[in-house]
Amino acid sequence: MIKTRAAVAFAPNQPLEIVELDLEEPKAGEVLIRNVATGVCHTDYFTLSGKDPEGVFPCVLGHEGGAVVEAVGEGVTSVKPGDHVIPLYIPECGECKYCKSGKTNLCQAVRETQGRGLMPDGTTRFSYNGEPIYHYMGTSTFSEYSVVAEISLAKIDKEAPLDKVCLLGCGVTTGIGAALNTAKVEEGSTVVVFGMGFIGLSVVQGALKAKAGRIICVDINDYKLEKAKDFGGTEFVNPSHYDKPIAEVIIEMTDGGADYSFECIGSTDIMRSALECTHKGWGKSVVVGVAGEGEEISTRPFQLVTGRQWLGTAFGGVKGRSELPGMVDEYLDGDIIIDPIITHNMGLEDINTAFDLMKSGESIRTIIHY
Amino acid sequence: MIKTRAAVAFAPNQPLEIVELDLEEPKAGEVLIRNVATGVCHTDYFTLSGKDPEGVFPCVLGHEGGAVVEAVGEGVTSVKPGDHVIPLYIPECGECKYCKSGKTNLCQAVRETQGRGLMPDGTTRFSYNGEPIYHYMGTSTFSEYSVVAEISLAKIDKEAPLDKVCLLGCGVTTGIGAALNTAKVEEGSTVVVFGMGFIGLSVVQGALKAKAGRIICVDINDYKLEKAKDFGGTEFVNPSHYDKPIAEVIIEMTDGGADYSFECIGSTDIMRSALECTHKGWGKSVVVGVAGEGEEISTRPFQLVTGRQWLGTAFGGVKGRSELPGMVDEYLDGDIIIDPIITHNMGLEDINTAFDLMKSGESIRTIIHY
Repeated sequence: MIKTRAAVAFAPNQPLEIVELDLEEPKAGEVLIRNVATGVCHTDYFTLSGKDPEGVFPCVLGHEGGAVVEAVGEGVTSVKPGDHVIPLYIPECGECKYCKSGKTNLCQAVRETQGRGLMPDGTTRFSYNGEPIYHYMGTSTFSEYSVVAEISLAKIDKEAPLDKVCLLGCGVTTGIGAALNTAKVEEGSTVVVFGMGFIGLSVVQGALKAKAGRIICVDINDYKLEKAKDFGGTEFVNPSHYDKPIAEVIIEMTDGGADYSFECIGSTDIMRSALECTHKGWGKSVVVGVAGEGEEISTRPFQLVTGRQWLGTAFGGVKGRSELPGMVDEYLDGDIIIDPIITHNMGLEDINTAFDLMKSGESIRTIIHY
Repeated sequence: MIKTRAAVAFAPNQPLEIVELDLEEPKAGEVLIRNVATGVCHTDYFTLSGKDPEGVFPCVLGHEGGAVVEAVGEGVTSVKPGDHVIPLYIPECGECKYCKSGKTNLCQAVRETQGRGLMPDGTTRFSYNGEPIYHYMGTSTFSEYSVVAEISLAKIDKEAPLDKVCLLGCGVTTGIGAALNTAKVEEGSTVVVFGMGFIGLSVVQGALKAKAGRIICVDINDYKLEKAKDFGGTEFVNPSHYDKPIAEVIIEMTDGGADYSFECIGSTDIMRSALECTHKGWGKSVVVGVAGEGEEISTRPFQLVTGRQWLGTAFGGVKGRSELPGMVDEYLDGDIIIDPIITHNMGLEDINTAFDLMKSGESIRTIIHY
């Protein structure tokens, strides 16, 4: 049993509390990691808000970590103490029906327990005053030390700064993958991205990598639109400056609609606009944002019958253990941009400030340094 | 000006009336055809019912014809008198943005006038007592003679029986194309088809051509399910024999969901079931049926985020002039099945009976012979 400093969500919609937790040693197939840095993501806030049906309290949130392996449990062979790793909220076992399908990154090996805040054996490693504290997304990076499943770790180059590449644990990868893997954006095409948060900026980056001809960035926040210039955006639209529906604006700008669109906000209304602003015959729209529980998307089926496709993505379709190490190398080679996303840096004790900055739209991404 | 016997829809929701119409000679880029046979399709009924927002009355319905070219207008080069043709409700001009995209069959060259029941020059060729009678879908095959645009004709092998291959003008092609072009069904996969009407049976046939491993046929009509055996169906499900939602039934039968699903009814509720019964990670669902005006499809975006794709198809993605001649050849070679679809044959004077048989579910397809 070790002690670890952690930001604990004791109850929905309450500030996190910095406390010292007890953490059990890793069991078979598990790994003890020391988080060096972690991003603070809208998904953490979504769960904290109480709207996530899988939210279990009290828990340790956080899923965008950069970490060092401290100890391994029985049978662990793919990582050893001292290795640098990115924890994965979608693991890659390589053996389940999903991993073997060759069609999806949605490994289901530990899905059931992970969704209930538990390790694969059905118990927690964290406790506080003898009471269990639940895990989150199989990662719980808001704790200096954490125990995760071996299949939930991508081993990466030690040269990479963990306080930067930690963002490949979620948003950067989701956005780039949505463009390259899910939509398969083609060279010269017209792309529209709704929401210039971290994910949207990363979709813009992905579209740039795919050599899209036009990358239209949409946000109601001019500061975020300005940011999109650094990532490859070519046109910038603030819907609040128009008095007609945004789908109409895009259709007019693009002579009939975009080839690809991406919703990176989590609004079901915008998801509809994103579909309906794509081009008849071939438009592809990808849902990237996470909507509130029970919310539904709707459209007339005619939109699909006339050739539009409605898709979605999780972690950009990227298989973490196979593909993330290569993306870290791309960052090191300057082919993936991360640094301008990071607008704030602070210690764990200020994590509630990081949430406030995110909610107010003042930050793109805050990194917590341990 | 010639005379032609036609079944005219004078008003919504009224029986068709067999009358003699005046028909002008074909203008530039137009062709006079003599229909030898035509199918009677649910889409004709949909328009007749008054629910089709593009329905214009009085009109000559019908869009599943097999015809012979009688005369050509100025500048027509691709067909000549005596050629056998299938009229196309989706033309193929080869020159518009859509035709040139390589991504869709939705040629838009005459879309705007066709949708208003007019020839490309904005007038009608049909008239009755001096009053214009509108065209329908650019084909109007419920008239012995009709004038259509040159780009709306596929020239086919004269060996092919027109009273059979006329069904390649709509349902057979839509169904086979939905499976092969839109969903791209893979060998060994599991397919579920909702609705064993003409289109659904043709999707079953398409899935068979793609060498699907399981083809699950769903209909509340046991007679139609029985018919599905002739087309390659491997399992048969009547939802009225179950007391749980059909999506759940399919998910249980398929260990997590079908790889591909097709809605061939036009029910937005079934469209949702069809999406939600596909497999997490890779399920593709294709909307083939035509829903009523203003009806919408809905689902939780989580269905897409976890890897399902929602698609649609029109005429199975098939480019009529380029691809239909080859499909006629496949019919002649025994590689496309049409004959068992035809359950009734009658003359134009009995066309209202054909509608009644379709509405009651007693027929799969009735062929009208001129």
